[in-house]
Amino acid sequence: MQAKIRVGVVGGTGYTGVELLRLLSQHSFVDLVVITSGAEAGIPVGEFFPSLGERVPLRFSPRDSVELGTCDLVFFATPNGVAMRAVPELLAGGCRVIDLAADFRLTDSAVWAQWYGEPHACPELLAEAVYGLPEINRERISSARLVANPGCYPTAVALALLPLVESGVMALDSLIADCKSGYSGAGRQASIGLLAGEISESFKAYAVSGHRHQPEIEQTLRSVSGAATLQMTFVPHLVPMVRGIHATCYGRLIAPAELQTLYEQRYQSEVFVDVLPAGAYPETRHVRGANQCRLAVHQLSDDRVVVLSVIDNLVKGAAGQALQNMNLMFGLPETEGLQQVALVP
Amino acid sequence: MQAKIRVGVVGGTGYTGVELLRLLSQHSFVDLVVITSGAEAGIPVGEFFPSLGERVPLRFSPRDSVELGTCDLVFFATPNGVAMRAVPELLAGGCRVIDLAADFRLTDSAVWAQWYGEPHACPELLAEAVYGLPEINRERISSARLVANPGCYPTAVALALLPLVESGVMALDSLIADCKSGYSGAGRQASIGLLAGEISESFKAYAVSGHRHQPEIEQTLRSVSGAATLQMTFVPHLVPMVRGIHATCYGRLIAPAELQTLYEQRYQSEVFVDVLPAGAYPETRHVRGANQCRLAVHQLSDDRVVVLSVIDNLVKGAAGQALQNMNLMFGLPETEGLQQVALVP
Amino acid sequence: MQAKIRVGVVGGTGYTGVELLRLLSQHSFVDLVVITSGAEAGIPVGEFFPSLGERVPLRFSPRDSVELGTCDLVFFATPNGVAMRAVPELLAGGCRVIDLAADFRLTDSAVWAQWYGEPHACPELLAEAVYGLPEINRERISSARLVANPGCYPTAVALALLPLVESGVMALDSLIADCKSGYSGAGRQASIGLLAGEISESFKAYAVSGHRHQPEIEQTLRSVSGAATLQMTFVPHLVPMVRGIHATCYGRLIAPAELQTLYEQRYQSEVFVDVLPAGAYPETRHVRGANQCRLAVHQLSDDRVVVLSVIDNLVKGAAGQALQNMNLMFGLPETEGLQQVALVP
Amino acid sequence: MQAKIRVGVVGGTGYTGVELLRLLSQHSFVDLVVITSGAEAGIPVGEFFPSLGERVPLRFSPRDSVELGTCDLVFFATPNGVAMRAVPELLAGGCRVIDLAADFRLTDSAVWAQWYGEPHACPELLAEAVYGLPEINRERISSARLVANPGCYPTAVALALLPLVESGVMALDSLIADCKSGYSGAGRQASIGLLAGEISESFKAYAVSGHRHQPEIEQTLRSVSGAATLQMTFVPHLVPMVRGIHATCYGRLIAPAELQTLYEQRYQSEVFVDVLPAGAYPETRHVRGANQCRLAVHQLSDDRVVVLSVIDNLVKGAAGQALQNMNLMFGLPETEGLQQVALVP
Repeated sequence: MQAKIRVGVVGGTGYTGVELLRLLSQHSFVDLVVITSGAEAGIPVGEFFPSLGERVPLRFSPRDSVELGTCDLVFFATPNGVAMRAVPELLAGGCRVIDLAADFRLTDSAVWAQWYGEPHACPELLAEAVYGLPEINRERISSARLVANPGCYPTAVALALLPLVESGVMALDSLIADCKSGYSGAGRQASIGLLAGEISESFKAYAVSGHRHQPEIEQTLRSVSGAATLQMTFVPHLVPMVRGIHATCYGRLIAPAELQTLYEQRYQSEVFVDVLPAGAYPETRHVRGANQCRLAVHQLSDDRVVVLSVIDNLVKGAAGQALQNMNLMFGLPETEGLQQVALVP
Repeated sequence: MQAKIRVGVVGGTGYTGVELLRLLSQHSFVDLVVITSGAEAGIPVGEFFPSLGERVPLRFSPRDSVELGTCDLVFFATPNGVAMRAVPELLAGGCRVIDLAADFRLTDSAVWAQWYGEPHACPELLAEAVYGLPEINRERISSARLVANPGCYPTAVALALLPLVESGVMALDSLIADCKSGYSGAGRQASIGLLAGEISESFKAYAVSGHRHQPEIEQTLRSVSGAATLQMTFVPHLVPMVRGIHATCYGRLIAPAELQTLYEQRYQSEVFVDVLPAGAYPETRHVRGANQCRLAVHQLSDDRVVVLSVIDNLVKGAAGQALQNMNLMFGLPETEGLQQVALVP
Repeated sequence: MQAKIRVGVVGGTGYTGVELLRLLSQHSFVDLVVITSGAEAGIPVGEFFPSLGERVPLRFSPRDSVELGTCDLVFFATPNGVAMRAVPELLAGGCRVIDLAADFRLTDSAVWAQWYGEPHACPELLAEAVYGLPEINRERISSARLVANPGCYPTAVALALLPLVESGVMALDSLIADCKSGYSGAGRQASIGLLAGEISESFKAYAVSGHRHQPEIEQTLRSVSGAATLQMTFVPHLVPMVRGIHATCYGRLIAPAELQTLYEQRYQSEVFVDVLPAGAYPETRHVRGANQCRLAVHQLSDDRVVVLSVIDNLVKGAAGQALQNMNLMFGLPETEGLQQVALVP
Repeated sequence: MQAKIRVGVVGGTGYTGVELLRLLSQHSFVDLVVITSGAEAGIPVGEFFPSLGERVPLRFSPRDSVELGTCDLVFFATPNGVAMRAVPELLAGGCRVIDLAADFRLTDSAVWAQWYGEPHACPELLAEAVYGLPEINRERISSARLVANPGCYPTAVALALLPLVESGVMALDSLIADCKSGYSGAGRQASIGLLAGEISESFKAYAVSGHRHQPEIEQTLRSVSGAATLQMTFVPHLVPMVRGIHATCYGRLIAPAELQTLYEQRYQSEVFVDVLPAGAYPETRHVRGANQCRLAVHQLSDDRVVVLSVIDNLVKGAAGQALQNMNLMFGLPETEGLQQVALVP
């Protein structure tokens, strides 16, 4: 019989945190031993998140709880910049780590510092950290001590473009990702800009001049294309709904390709990526609560391609993918604890 | 090892249907053998409901599929008036039946005919049918051939009022249930009144002059109160959200009572009913996708009481409760397949 | 030709404030001379509220702007407790005042202090202040120096119940107001509880144990009933929509009455109150952006009555009613600047 | 004193129809004499659309009402293919016409037939019809007998791209318009796909393989660029909100340009087009209910440009623009009846 994984969670009070707890609490091989929160220490988790109820019978521990060091695996569901200060000690003590924030996503510490506004606290770990997109790094994830869980937009866009970029049929300077996200992606902070009165019944773009997910996407696509440089246009938008990301990706072909076949073959053994029939329209509701990416390819003319990609930003775009990585790291079936059917309607 | 239950579903193309399939497809002891639909016969279920994907690898069968007769249990997720025409034959053939519509909810065929606008097709079965609210009929459900799954409003209201009515502390002529439901409760029919452009960003009451759930609630409360007559005021409203029912129930006490204790004791062994601390506010989101009722009691003065009750109308108010009844009928743990954590946010 | 009214607004950065500015900027006889905001002083109003654009070509002035003293009329769209500290000086200087907050709504300073948590700063003005519900106080408003603009719930509930209470046909101890409000009523403050991620797609009650609008409603109904005491049950709920209040009011008749006629006669000359046909269902969307209350009466049995009432909480429930009061105070047609048609869909 | 325009409306029961009636009923120089509806003939308009209430004291007339022929101006707010069958007779009788549908938007009858699936009924009028985008055709509209009111997407995209295309700085084969629309744009028909239960809380693309607004946009941009051919990529998406269009337009510069200046100069005298500061983010809520387009230009690199454009699809994208055209046709101030401030929140 499989021994349970002793799991700790740092920072479980945001939307990514509660989603991670939802999934961990339903995983057959997880023993959830500690959940820390600086602000909520002492509060029962099930009181803070009534949806979890009796399913997570713990109280939030202080941020520096020594129990973290006793875990086989620690998840960080914290703001950027927190994990990098705590991870070296945990790794040294024998824990493995999955960071759901951005601290270990970029391999170049100078680029990281530029986008995140401070020097990296442990740049020596950036080379070791494995980018946790199983569809490209499955083997490396399995043996990793430290996994950088991908961002939500980067997951949706990378899965949309991988087959085109890997196969070399794409003009790398033609890539545009016009992305749309529900507001749970903006987190759970008390700010005027996230009030229901401000963002419901409205639509807008943001961060056109530069979003931190852009270098992350470019790094991923560069790594699979072999190109030294690759610059894409990335425009995120805020959709008045809770969950879901829709990426509409544009590009130009430089070589003829049987696109539908290309996609179906690339993802034929990927259980969490569904390639829809050519010309279909994936909808975000069809992956709500599920660890799934749904893709459809549209060839508009000889050279113009549009790829549509949807995920639940909190599942395949965050907590679900983190469990997928955990399953790989601990030799479990990749689908363990991740077979929830989407909640429709 | 538990043998699987051979299950058939009649009419799986509405919102109750897809929710039933979502839950059945994740239940460890269910073998889903046939799903019928007059209109969609031949269509793969996973194409009609992309959220189900590969999880339900069947095609819709014609309405009169003979495979239904081979099932241990047949669910009807059909409009009112369909089940009563097919159930006698299925029962005669040895199937057991759970009807998620209203055909067997009222014990008096004359009352049924009055509210549903036609004579009942098999009034002789009304006495045998068991009203499937486990919190009052657990034993009878276990041995039932035919279970009438309660309506969504009746579930929310009955669970809110049972302790008060059973204990005799309530003035039975003082009961008011002001109820609010998300629009998935109105079903999946092409009608102007259900368009997003008509019901989003708006709130209204409906059916004040008489809703079919009213005699159902009154029947339940009469049965536990022993009173010959009991008439309540029931006003349903439409909330611009997909899922969830909130019942706000008002009444007058005729005897002093320790209400919080009364509720906690009444439901202490009910795993799907949570009694919140006195004065709390249940929110529908905290049960989204979960088979749970959350209740809070507010005593406003010596005699005025308000009870707040929330359920997911498609789960504890329909498909989830149907699985709970199935578990009871087939000797399974009552929570089997029903431990999904609510989807928040 | 009518001279323009010199108008000042104190505290124009909340939802009530921007709605007031929307309406004032379209009023033919208003000269908007100063808008103050402690936090936003110096910022162009049209930059802070892009919807106003060029229509309000002012910058926010500091809170203590001397220009306020030069106005014919000053509106307070501030949090509770602000107006009462500034009003005496403005009145002394010859300004007239409409307070959209609660400082002058209750006539009894002890009751005010109990509900608002501090002693009243100018209790001597409570007797002079006129409660600005034109449907009961039109004459007094016309000559008032100081008008207390009613709360949103109190407007919806009072208009729903006035005919029954004034005519003496109602059991005054039977009154229940089950009210539902969109979230713009909760204001524009950075708080977790008002995030879109928290309140969209969910429904809940709040403040059951006591809401500040309850004594306000009771005071109004007492004043028209002549009863020394009157206690109602008032339960507010939060609806996942931006605008709109729906009050569902319950009561028992103590004398026979022709209710539809009673309502139609009571409101026959009220241009902003529509009595719908008996048994109709008012919807909040039909008054979105309009200064209108729509009512429908349902008699359920010999003695049970339900009255449904909808308003836009920011218009007839706040800023629109304030302009209606201004029109009365300055001898303008009551409908001046208030004939916007509701925005549907 | 200006004589009133005798106005008729054909087909006033959809969302464009009710918006047109909302605006016409508030216009000082309109005498609304007849509103036809095949299905609703005889029904009071204010009963069908309670938001209009007493403001439109007419009943729907039969489709072939002779009163249409007595009008100075007839608006068609009908499905595509209706106006072209009735317009020749109306013009012959001396009426002028504004068609809010697509019958007269394309100048080439063969292209029209290809996209709309039938031969055009009066191709001889296509050359005379003036495309009703005042920002390019103001003079011609003033003297037109027949105005083709632009589509909603075409309005948002054309206004976004006009300065770039007119000035010749744009690579015409690089144009992409990724557009997002609220669901009121899909009309008011009883179809499953428009149910609140299907489209709320979800996001999807549609019509990627070809949308009727694409040839319309291309025709407009060709006409101002002088290019013989111009093909753009156009991908529309459905946003879970009622009103609003957001166009995100991408392109490559072929010549250096001072973009912000270019836009500000191009639109400096256009009262209904606001050019925001460089790098700003227009939001659809800021034009809700208003006849306004808000634009912002983002230059991402030497040659990559993104232009963001928002309108209310029912106002500047339909009924508001129709009134703007009417004002031009009848020599009224262009802003008459169109100065509503956006409804925020």
